Amino acid sequence: MRNESSMIEGRNAVLEALRSDTVIDKIFVLDGSSDGPIRSIVREAKKQNIMIDFVKKERLDQISDTGKHQGAIAYIAAYEYATVDDILEVAKEKNEDPFIFILDGIEDPHNLGAMIRTANLAGAHGVIIPNRRAVGLTATVAKASAGAINYTKVAKVTNINQTIEALKEVGLWFVCADMDGEEMYRLNLKGPIGLVIGNEGEGVSSLTKKKCDFVASIPMKGDIDSLNASVACGVLAYEIVRQRMN
Amino acid sequence: MRNESSMIEGRNAVLEALRSDTVIDKIFVLDGSSDGPIRSIVREAKKQNIMIDFVKKERLDQISDTGKHQGAIAYIAAYEYATVDDILEVAKEKNEDPFIFILDGIEDPHNLGAMIRTANLAGAHGVIIPNRRAVGLTATVAKASAGAINYTKVAKVTNINQTIEALKEVGLWFVCADMDGEEMYRLNLKGPIGLVIGNEGEGVSSLTKKKCDFVASIPMKGDIDSLNASVACGVLAYEIVRQRMN
Repeated sequence: MRNESSMIEGRNAVLEALRSDTVIDKIFVLDGSSDGPIRSIVREAKKQNIMIDFVKKERLDQISDTGKHQGAIAYIAAYEYATVDDILEVAKEKNEDPFIFILDGIEDPHNLGAMIRTANLAGAHGVIIPNRRAVGLTATVAKASAGAINYTKVAKVTNINQTIEALKEVGLWFVCADMDGEEMYRLNLKGPIGLVIGNEGEGVSSLTKKKCDFVASIPMKGDIDSLNASVACGVLAYEIVRQRMN
Repeated sequence: MRNESSMIEGRNAVLEALRSDTVIDKIFVLDGSSDGPIRSIVREAKKQNIMIDFVKKERLDQISDTGKHQGAIAYIAAYEYATVDDILEVAKEKNEDPFIFILDGIEDPHNLGAMIRTANLAGAHGVIIPNRRAVGLTATVAKASAGAINYTKVAKVTNINQTIEALKEVGLWFVCADMDGEEMYRLNLKGPIGLVIGNEGEGVSSLTKKKCDFVASIPMKGDIDSLNASVACGVLAYEIVRQRMN
């Protein structure tokens, strides 16, 4: 469901939002501020694992719509998040083996939007993204998703590796993409599956990779290193689709 | 090969460029100008099928680096184009059946860059783009290609349909993507092949679609209409790769 506003400005408004149910994607605070309310904001945001950017006054002035930020601006999610259980429920309702995208640390909103679009069309039941070091459901992501964000559930979790462990316990297998993996066509990707795609520059983290049951490689016949992250995600997702259809 | 400068400003400089071997991607001219040299620029550009944007003075001022545009600015290609024959030559040298991407009317430079990147890694021998109504090899495209533009040949042609006809005569088959096509897994996509991807919004034009030997559909299991163009291109390209590897 779409939220109305996307930015909260001012120390008290941001602190209030932190103490309510509002889903905050990111907070900008004045760097070096020793102001009491600002310190409360930082403490509360850290507790909730919300990303904090410490920036100069000029940057805050630039971001601000009202000009009255008082050293604190919060970006709230343009769309509401689901929970991992909500996603599993979708699979259950459709009587299908769960198929979930785990997008670990995507920074480019166009990539995240394109991947949610792919998740929708590949028949995945939902998308899981991390709280930190990743773009959230911003307006740009919504636009790049071409409407998919209205249908495909997106959950935000604090710890991707713990989420993978929990999903393994309900029967999911995990596959991630990496160059040194086994050729994707030779893997058995049927059944309840989580597809893990890593950050655009760094790929899947080594800890997450260790947690995956399969490491799949996309055949690379060229001169450069890697596909665009959303293209790689699409190619792997559709290999899963192909195997599921057989 | 990379070109040095990317913009030419001023009536005489643009006219000179048009009369030389310089590869021009697009020309901006002052809307409504009855100035002689400007009219020569428009006439010459039309003759060469170069895209012309008629814009207001404010827009030209905004684009201009020098502030001395005199009503005419030309964008020159950031990279040099190859010919279709160059692309066929690459396939011949590798002793492989030609595999060519035909990207008909891609407008978003990030998409074009991602597709050139995919062409490189999928082992395609080159990419063909049209002169008109499409983005050319700009600096943004080069960046989005992640270096692929330095390896994968890109040819620019005046008439995509005529190029398809000519390539059919040397033995290529053509496949395009469209929702009403046959499921891609059931098509035989081996042998010398051209993969046709259409414009982001409108897809493949009906005339081009008629010229294709196959219309392939990517299975769509969701609620929205279509994948991101570069994701669709990647999914289809890798179905071709899979079949070629068998």
